[in-house]
Amino acid sequence: MRPDLTEPLKLLAVRVERVLEQVLPTPELEPSRLHAAMRYSVLGGGKRLRPLLCYAGAAAVGGRTEQADRAAAALEVIHAYSLIHDDLPAMDDDDLRRGKPTCHIAFDEATAILAGDALQALAFELIANDPGHSTERSRLAAIRTLALACGSQGMAGGQAFDLGAVGRQLTEFELKRMHAHKTGALIRAAVLMGAELTGQADSHQLAQLARFGSLVGLAFQIRDDILDIEGDTEIIGKRQGADIARNKPTFPSIMGLDAAKAAAEDTRQQALSALSSFGPEAELLRDLAHYAVDRPS
Amino acid sequence: MRPDLTEPLKLLAVRVERVLEQVLPTPELEPSRLHAAMRYSVLGGGKRLRPLLCYAGAAAVGGRTEQADRAAAALEVIHAYSLIHDDLPAMDDDDLRRGKPTCHIAFDEATAILAGDALQALAFELIANDPGHSTERSRLAAIRTLALACGSQGMAGGQAFDLGAVGRQLTEFELKRMHAHKTGALIRAAVLMGAELTGQADSHQLAQLARFGSLVGLAFQIRDDILDIEGDTEIIGKRQGADIARNKPTFPSIMGLDAAKAAAEDTRQQALSALSSFGPEAELLRDLAHYAVDRPS
Repeated sequence: MRPDLTEPLKLLAVRVERVLEQVLPTPELEPSRLHAAMRYSVLGGGKRLRPLLCYAGAAAVGGRTEQADRAAAALEVIHAYSLIHDDLPAMDDDDLRRGKPTCHIAFDEATAILAGDALQALAFELIANDPGHSTERSRLAAIRTLALACGSQGMAGGQAFDLGAVGRQLTEFELKRMHAHKTGALIRAAVLMGAELTGQADSHQLAQLARFGSLVGLAFQIRDDILDIEGDTEIIGKRQGADIARNKPTFPSIMGLDAAKAAAEDTRQQALSALSSFGPEAELLRDLAHYAVDRPS
Repeated sequence: MRPDLTEPLKLLAVRVERVLEQVLPTPELEPSRLHAAMRYSVLGGGKRLRPLLCYAGAAAVGGRTEQADRAAAALEVIHAYSLIHDDLPAMDDDDLRRGKPTCHIAFDEATAILAGDALQALAFELIANDPGHSTERSRLAAIRTLALACGSQGMAGGQAFDLGAVGRQLTEFELKRMHAHKTGALIRAAVLMGAELTGQADSHQLAQLARFGSLVGLAFQIRDDILDIEGDTEIIGKRQGADIARNKPTFPSIMGLDAAKAAAEDTRQQALSALSSFGPEAELLRDLAHYAVDRPS
């Protein structure tokens, strides 16, 4: 049981925070309120799981950290945008996120919609406009991967499946499909983009990394559902039991708590197996697979 | 006075419609409702001004029509997403658009938010994934141009300026700044992207095309404000007088109707001047400058 991030991963989390600080427009620049809302929603919170997976994906194929910097930031920017929109009154109607008021509470609903929209555009700009560290071909590949992971066959589609699921009994297949889109697609993209941007991953490696990413995404989600039952509101940063109160289907609600814990464990092992052809350079990815299942929040 | 689109432009409008038909996911694919909302909002309506400017921008530097196909579609997809979000209850709260119920009325608010989000991602995917017709470098340039035009320094920023303007007296500077962001940025990007994707525009040409695009965007907006006063609800496809009823600042409300008409004319002439170094290959752009000011709706 290694509940915390390892030291190298903690350093990478600090690193992406600095990149985010730099690339996000400041409120000194007009329109101030929009820029303030964007920074509020991205900075100073969150596990930075997607950036870490991106850095770890680059490392796994022998890439350099700076090759993944802007993609790592872009992934967190996309994640933040998705949380802002998910929290809106017309969607999940949440007022607390990462222990702070959600964007539409701290600002207003219109600003929250626009902050999400502007963040999505910023993410693509960050990758398109990355001087020096990657080839044009690899940046285009990463943009393609990100766009597919964000669209109707990825994250936005997953949220649509989620909308159709509230208050309804889902099969395990439907629940997995929803999460594979809603959170899995971006997590998988994070690992892939890191590897793609190095320009030195072969197709077998990319296939294995994609498989690893999907499995880690699933493990992460099962753990999330378990924490919704067992976690402490203060530590998890959102209301404990929020999903159950909303009658949202979860892995424990469908398969039982013990079976969900076993499924998380099994998924971790499968994820580690997907990395069997990689050497010690994939250690960061392995650490993240453990973190996904062992994390306390 | 040439109020209608010329025949070549009408053919290009039909052409982009076909591309859009092909690239938009169908409701046969899950999540069906999301895909239905995306198609509903993009297909079968609108002037297709941005695609036409994109095709015309490509032609102006001697490019081939097929080089601009996917960027043209991407621009309309972005435009449709921005309209969906602008029409939301928390934003402009409009129930009629292009003569049809707005997306959140025809579907629901959550689906409308997600349809907009998914369309933005689709636009970037369309350009990143355009086999054969353009170089990787030119596609990255077009993605960068599009992302900047969509973000907080472009369209989303303009909508934020707009939010801050309702019910307040704006100066002409503030009104122009708002529109330069809200609609001007994407119109300017449309002309530029068309030229960029050909891979054969030099920096002087790009600068002139950018200037042309900004001016056409301004002319288009002034004409929009005039149509809000003089237009017929059935022809303009949204409620006549909607901006005035909402106490939104417009060019006629700030400078008077006659001065607004003179400004539209002056802006058209400036736009045409920006093309003075181009030959007959820029005729489609010139036609669009006329259309922006003379159009009946």
